[in-house]
Amino acid sequence: MNASEFRRRGKEMVDYVADYLEGIEGRQVFPDVDPGYLRPLIPTTAPQEPEAFEDIIEDVEKIIMPGVTHWHSPYFFAYFPTASSYPAMLADMLCGAIGCIGFSWAASPACTELETVMMDWLGKMLQLPEAFLAGEAGEGGGVIQGTASEATLVALLAARTKVTRCLQAASPELTQAAIMEKLVAYTSDQAHSSVEKASLIGGVRLKAIPSDAKFAMRASALQEALDRDKAAGLIPFFVVATLGTTSCCSFDNLLEVGPICHEEGVWLHVDAAYAGSAFICPEFRHLLNGVEEHLSLPREAAGTAPFLLAHNEARVPSLSLTHQEHSHSVVRPRARGAQVKKRTDLTGAFRLDPVYLRHSHQDSGLITDYRHWQLPLGRRFRSLKMWFVFRMYGVKGLQAYIRKHVQLAHAFEALVRQDPRFEICAEVTLGLVCFRLKGSNKLNEALLESINSAKKIHLVPCSLRDRFVLRFAICSRTVELAHVQRAWEHIQEMAATVLAAQGEDKAEIKN
Amino acid sequence: MNASEFRRRGKEMVDYVADYLEGIEGRQVFPDVDPGYLRPLIPTTAPQEPEAFEDIIEDVEKIIMPGVTHWHSPYFFAYFPTASSYPAMLADMLCGAIGCIGFSWAASPACTELETVMMDWLGKMLQLPEAFLAGEAGEGGGVIQGTASEATLVALLAARTKVTRCLQAASPELTQAAIMEKLVAYTSDQAHSSVEKASLIGGVRLKAIPSDAKFAMRASALQEALDRDKAAGLIPFFVVATLGTTSCCSFDNLLEVGPICHEEGVWLHVDAAYAGSAFICPEFRHLLNGVEEHLSLPREAAGTAPFLLAHNEARVPSLSLTHQEHSHSVVRPRARGAQVKKRTDLTGAFRLDPVYLRHSHQDSGLITDYRHWQLPLGRRFRSLKMWFVFRMYGVKGLQAYIRKHVQLAHAFEALVRQDPRFEICAEVTLGLVCFRLKGSNKLNEALLESINSAKKIHLVPCSLRDRFVLRFAICSRTVELAHVQRAWEHIQEMAATVLAAQGEDKAEIKN
Repeated sequence: MNASEFRRRGKEMVDYVADYLEGIEGRQVFPDVDPGYLRPLIPTTAPQEPEAFEDIIEDVEKIIMPGVTHWHSPYFFAYFPTASSYPAMLADMLCGAIGCIGFSWAASPACTELETVMMDWLGKMLQLPEAFLAGEAGEGGGVIQGTASEATLVALLAARTKVTRCLQAASPELTQAAIMEKLVAYTSDQAHSSVEKASLIGGVRLKAIPSDAKFAMRASALQEALDRDKAAGLIPFFVVATLGTTSCCSFDNLLEVGPICHEEGVWLHVDAAYAGSAFICPEFRHLLNGVEEHLSLPREAAGTAPFLLAHNEARVPSLSLTHQEHSHSVVRPRARGAQVKKRTDLTGAFRLDPVYLRHSHQDSGLITDYRHWQLPLGRRFRSLKMWFVFRMYGVKGLQAYIRKHVQLAHAFEALVRQDPRFEICAEVTLGLVCFRLKGSNKLNEALLESINSAKKIHLVPCSLRDRFVLRFAICSRTVELAHVQRAWEHIQEMAATVLAAQGEDKAEIKN
Repeated sequence: MNASEFRRRGKEMVDYVADYLEGIEGRQVFPDVDPGYLRPLIPTTAPQEPEAFEDIIEDVEKIIMPGVTHWHSPYFFAYFPTASSYPAMLADMLCGAIGCIGFSWAASPACTELETVMMDWLGKMLQLPEAFLAGEAGEGGGVIQGTASEATLVALLAARTKVTRCLQAASPELTQAAIMEKLVAYTSDQAHSSVEKASLIGGVRLKAIPSDAKFAMRASALQEALDRDKAAGLIPFFVVATLGTTSCCSFDNLLEVGPICHEEGVWLHVDAAYAGSAFICPEFRHLLNGVEEHLSLPREAAGTAPFLLAHNEARVPSLSLTHQEHSHSVVRPRARGAQVKKRTDLTGAFRLDPVYLRHSHQDSGLITDYRHWQLPLGRRFRSLKMWFVFRMYGVKGLQAYIRKHVQLAHAFEALVRQDPRFEICAEVTLGLVCFRLKGSNKLNEALLESINSAKKIHLVPCSLRDRFVLRFAICSRTVELAHVQRAWEHIQEMAATVLAAQGEDKAEIKN
């Protein structure tokens, strides 16, 4: 395929994409296929000779689309949104064409530098304290991670490296393994599974802190765990607080958790993978309070403050903050040169400099080599998407986008509250509503089963204190009040059927 | 931006992309910017109001392009190719539009199933032994990892988990830390930095095996290291063999290394991130020999054989194989049910099943939930690219693509050999030529500096046995013999200048 054929086919694909998204409401949100559906539909080996584009695009409709879960359908209310937008798609096309691998500054200076500035734009939109920003002087700063999982893992590994080096500096006879055996990370019992995965990968213990009645991690439970573990000779080193949990969008109490981490010299990572974006709205920004709390310390004592954006394949980005606490005890800041020091804490864990990646500016202190900030070596020009989206929406447009989702969630909540058969199971703060039929888990499992079998809408469940709960997450860019209302009517119908069946069951048992 | 504006702007972007790639030869391959160039060119904060697309696309030319290293320029000979193609870009557009996150089968069945079948297509193109393929029965099978770094890390973590569980099964009193303290991974002194990074992340020791005169890991050096470490009470558990090293595209001797890993019960990971693609050509397939060697064992003894594709943001994929050795000693296969067992060895390290990710088919044994095969939870519909590229090139087209690159490398090698001032520093097997001026490292550093300052072509160096060497890697899809010849003439000119300057220096010293 040469450039002129690409011009033709690319434009056809633009139309296909626009048609798909304009018509997505007409497609069944969840597919009708069984496991293994695809293999019989395509050849067992790759073709020897090239095939025509027409045949491929025809197969997209025949083979791929019947097996697609349509995440951008206005009837998709499962998981969390993976935001998508036309500006992001345009940026992606450009990103693919440039096709650089931005592992170092020299590998494509624009790729690194736009990311640094875009992360500053985002940091300012979130009203992050100054110390989180790169600015002209290069202190702090952000990085786009591939996914929220990687953001948490990178923070955990950086914290592990820092505490290990610190302890070994004081007691050179300590082996890494002897230290790791005693390290403990903490997170709420409501945290995302990626925190547990990070601890498995990092080879350290993770303890779940019981959350309170509102599913939030609080000071007392955390302090209790820390005290108990320290008394047992263990070394607390890492706490993950979640703002907007996956199960029910609860918020750990940063204002309480932060000071404890500060006092104990423990690295605090804030996972705001879902809720982070909402903090660009002033009315939701208070949910992030506690970040300032700790950074109101003298700047030079504040330690490193890089923040990690979890890209998560999202188009409108979600956020994961690494707010590294400085330390009075275990993890003592050693450097004077804040600029280098701040980055070094994060990058120290991964820094390797083979000759083939060296370039003339790398030791200048002026540049960022993002490969030291992440797990993989390679990285795409992902900040183009942020640049396009921020500019084509404007901050006001992005705020409006978030507010609409929150309003729709509250509209759904109001509908649920009007129906006495149902209950709301967690406070509705952003775009997620947790609800269930009053009654047994079995009843609610049957309800979800009937909803997802009908495939008019798509939901996933969660478990809250062993109660089976349905999650209704506002996801699509194009979802409107009418879709939410129709979804609710459908849920009510399904509920009626399930309740009727239950009544019959009970009647049968009685008879 | 609505669908109709996207139709218009998307088509403009298609033209912009085509123009960019058609005209890339006219752009200076390496940019003229200094660190920090970009920040003053754009506002310090995101705009409040939306901006026009025209302004953004204008800024791409004004702000982004001057800072781009053009990886697809035919004068780009640095690092390794990050293959790109028009079919891949078309697939990427579709992938962005569908915008699903394929962490489980249910999250988008087509996303998972196409990947499984595409990895089988690739496995067959590579003539991998049957045990590596998923097939109808679901044994073995492949997964696309985000990058080569992740492929290596996932393999290391899976091996770490397996050996730990095995040892704990025999001696329940052993803690994970006590085991990890004794675990040792091995790789050649020529391996990519990502292997060291994986060992740092995994918290295990890594030992570099001295390579032979051809920069290959051989049996004797590996066996010696294993014996020494076992005698010291350590536990060898993981070997990374590289096919196509980054420095000089050397090949570890799989036919020797494989049997040792087999004998010692050590997991063997094959990193073929660069060279892997070439194995689809029959004339290069022998470089992978040794894979069969071990899998000519009885099938049920062969252990798991998933293979990991390192996506590495590449468009024409490169390959990383995980060939897990079964074990007679430390790591003994325990299962009879090969289908489940085979996958379990890889997925066991990461398996977490929160309620919000459960779906009705997950325990059926029929489906693949790729989230257990990788570090992140989220993943894009990346197999669409493989599907488009395999079909629109055909196997013959892909073979021709690789052969052209290899031929161009040999053409460059021949040019270098004709000039007695130069020497070739490593055998040329695929698309990389390592060369230098006969003389000091300083001289060659000056040569590279002058080449990269002139910015007509772009190269990076490597270090081979402390010799500073220039790498000439055939990278671009559009590079032709004429470009290679022009690049060589340019290198000769630069060399003449550098040698003359050296002569003057020497003359001055004499005077």
